[in-house]
Amino acid sequence: MQAAIDEARQGRQEGGIPIGSVLMRDGKVVARGRNKRVQENNPIKHGEMDALFNAGRQRTYRDTVLYTTLMPCYMCAGTIVQFKIPKVVVGEDRTFGESREFLESHGVEVVILDLPECVQMMTDFIRDEPTLWNEDIME
Amino acid sequence: MQAAIDEARQGRQEGGIPIGSVLMRDGKVVARGRNKRVQENNPIKHGEMDALFNAGRQRTYRDTVLYTTLMPCYMCAGTIVQFKIPKVVVGEDRTFGESREFLESHGVEVVILDLPECVQMMTDFIRDEPTLWNEDIME
Repeated sequence: MQAAIDEARQGRQEGGIPIGSVLMRDGKVVARGRNKRVQENNPIKHGEMDALFNAGRQRTYRDTVLYTTLMPCYMCAGTIVQFKIPKVVVGEDRTFGESREFLESHGVEVVILDLPECVQMMTDFIRDEPTLWNEDIME
Repeated sequence: MQAAIDEARQGRQEGGIPIGSVLMRDGKVVARGRNKRVQENNPIKHGEMDALFNAGRQRTYRDTVLYTTLMPCYMCAGTIVQFKIPKVVVGEDRTFGESREFLESHGVEVVILDLPECVQMMTDFIRDEPTLWNEDIME
C-alpha cells in the first residue's frame, strides 16, 4: 500500500489527482499506476486503470491483488469484476466510494484499511481542488 | 451505429478485435473508438473506452449517447454508470454481454438493435480467434 500512496503523492506533485494503485502477484509488484486525468488529459486513466494499463496484457488476473488508495469508482470496480481480480485492498472509503456492494456481489474480496494518511490526502485535495475532483467523479 | 460498425471493421483489418463505439451529442459525433487490445497492447482499450479516451475531458456526459457494436462488458458498463451517460445503443447482445441489468439498475437506458451484421462480425471473429477473444473477456 505504501507504493500506492507514493504514486498518489507523485500524482499530486504533478498537479494531478492523488490516487495511486499497485497490482501485485505473489507478493511482487506487477505494475504501479496513478490517476492521470490532468497529466495526460485522459478521463479513463484512474489510478487502477493506469496500473492495469502499465501491466500490459496478462494471461490471467485471478492470482493478483489490486491495492488502491481510494475506494474504486464504478469504472474501476467494473474493470476489477471483468478482469476477475479476486481481491482489492483499499486505503480508505470515507471520502468516496459506493462500489463495495457491487464488488462483493460479484465475489471480489474487499479489504478496507481506513488509513488516516489516505483520508488526509483526499480531504486536502478535495478542499483545494473541488472543481477538478467533481470532474473526476462526474458530479 | 454505422460509424461504430465501420470502426469495428477497421479494427479487424488491423488484426484487432472488431468492436467499435461512437459517443454522440445532439446528433453529432463527439468521438469514435475501437478495441485496441492488439494494436496498442492495451487491455483497457475496449471500443467504448477508446471512444471516451478520444473524446478527452468533457464537462458532462449527461447529454450524450454511446453507440457500441456489442453489449458492454462490466468495465465499460461501470464506466457508463460512473460517467453518467444516460443511454447506450447496442448493436447486439447475442455473442456477449451480461451487464444489461447492472446498467438498467443504475438508470441507464439500454437499446438493443440486434443487428445481424454485428452478430455475424462477432461470430466470425470468435470462430477465427478464440484465444484472443477469451483473453479480451478474461475467460
